[in-house]
Amino acid sequence: MKYTVITGASSGIGYETALAFASRGKNVIVVARREAQLNELKKEIHSLNAELDVVIKPADLSKNEEVHVLYESLKEYDIETWINNAGFGNASPVVEQEVQKTEKMLRVNIEALTTLSTLYAHDYSSKEGTQLINVSSDLGYRIVPNAVTYAATKFYVSAFTEGLAQELQDEGAPMKVKILAPSMTETEFVQNARDIDHFSYRDNVQQFHTAKEMAQFMLELYDREKILGKVNSESYEFELMDPVFQYPSKRSAD
Amino acid sequence: MKYTVITGASSGIGYETALAFASRGKNVIVVARREAQLNELKKEIHSLNAELDVVIKPADLSKNEEVHVLYESLKEYDIETWINNAGFGNASPVVEQEVQKTEKMLRVNIEALTTLSTLYAHDYSSKEGTQLINVSSDLGYRIVPNAVTYAATKFYVSAFTEGLAQELQDEGAPMKVKILAPSMTETEFVQNARDIDHFSYRDNVQQFHTAKEMAQFMLELYDREKILGKVNSESYEFELMDPVFQYPSKRSAD
Repeated sequence: MKYTVITGASSGIGYETALAFASRGKNVIVVARREAQLNELKKEIHSLNAELDVVIKPADLSKNEEVHVLYESLKEYDIETWINNAGFGNASPVVEQEVQKTEKMLRVNIEALTTLSTLYAHDYSSKEGTQLINVSSDLGYRIVPNAVTYAATKFYVSAFTEGLAQELQDEGAPMKVKILAPSMTETEFVQNARDIDHFSYRDNVQQFHTAKEMAQFMLELYDREKILGKVNSESYEFELMDPVFQYPSKRSAD
Repeated sequence: MKYTVITGASSGIGYETALAFASRGKNVIVVARREAQLNELKKEIHSLNAELDVVIKPADLSKNEEVHVLYESLKEYDIETWINNAGFGNASPVVEQEVQKTEKMLRVNIEALTTLSTLYAHDYSSKEGTQLINVSSDLGYRIVPNAVTYAATKFYVSAFTEGLAQELQDEGAPMKVKILAPSMTETEFVQNARDIDHFSYRDNVQQFHTAKEMAQFMLELYDREKILGKVNSESYEFELMDPVFQYPSKRSAD
């Protein structure tokens, strides 16, 4: 029996992605801090398809030990797809940032993603049909004021994942590695980034996608060959494309 | 009395940068794990100029607590310039990387640099004459195989520092923030990245700079207005330039 792992599955893009993969008949392993929301998700999946296995793994990915305990606990499963979606923002100028929140963001957005990507690629890269999808952001390709540190974490995710995708491709490894780069999406993102209780996207943001729309783009990225699936921050079109950052092509390097 | 802080000062670019700033008559605070090398550096600086104050701060920047203890211990000094130079590489394909070494690299190259940059900018950004210089790499602007994770850490450093530099500039803050992006430099870098005891740049690398040359480029960057000082990886010329990554210009955003 095969599984799709989704981190940050308690809400937003992660929650909807779990539903979307379940709607394809995939068993899922869902990871987040908030167990109650994961139980809700499990109920919702089982109301659609009672046959599916939904494994709940509560974990705080800002804690390095929990990241390793999580991965160890998944050794017994056959993991077809791994989606590193967990992440959050920090909406303020760098000089006003609370360092503890920034460090936590680095641990989740960068360190947990790197550790889980590396371990998963190590164990599964030679297995046919496997995929690793890391969620970056359109801010993984351009910087904006008041989100500099967040954007930098996503530049890391984009560069790391583009590099890994091409490294494996050049080695002829069967695992596909891809990047989803959303722009504004209606989730808990803004309220967490700004430390506020509620935020209305409809009232405050000109253009955005719903988390359900992003989950459909995730499936489109999953189905296609392109490495990068990116929301165009002007048109809000979803575009499948080749990696953006410079990387030596195998042919020219040989 | 004013000071220049240099992390990773026990060898390579950091060691030579400390000497270069001392040759300009600057008092220095030198940070690294290896206290013996910092004592050597102090001796060498005092043989040039016995008047200078050289403060030795042994610290392992892969440990978050030590990063905070270091910063706290420097509260008593007036810090004119802060240079985050500490960092190391990891030379292997992602799938073969030892996760513990990778995590340590993330803590030094990204987390310590971010924490120290944020705290220093918080305390000093409104002070005339201050500078923060972060050492990235030409791999902070292009990815290469067998150095994907290292390159991604340097994309982070480039994006974070370019963003911070422009955020402060737009606010009219007096602090200057800059990026030094070396290419191959004759230091302990390759032996640490490959976990080998010795590496001869002269025998194995077509083009490289010495650490002394890079320290001179550091001074050139320090003296000039441009945000980015980058070694061109083809010509090995040192080029002073504007930031590379997209950032909204203040005029167009207003």
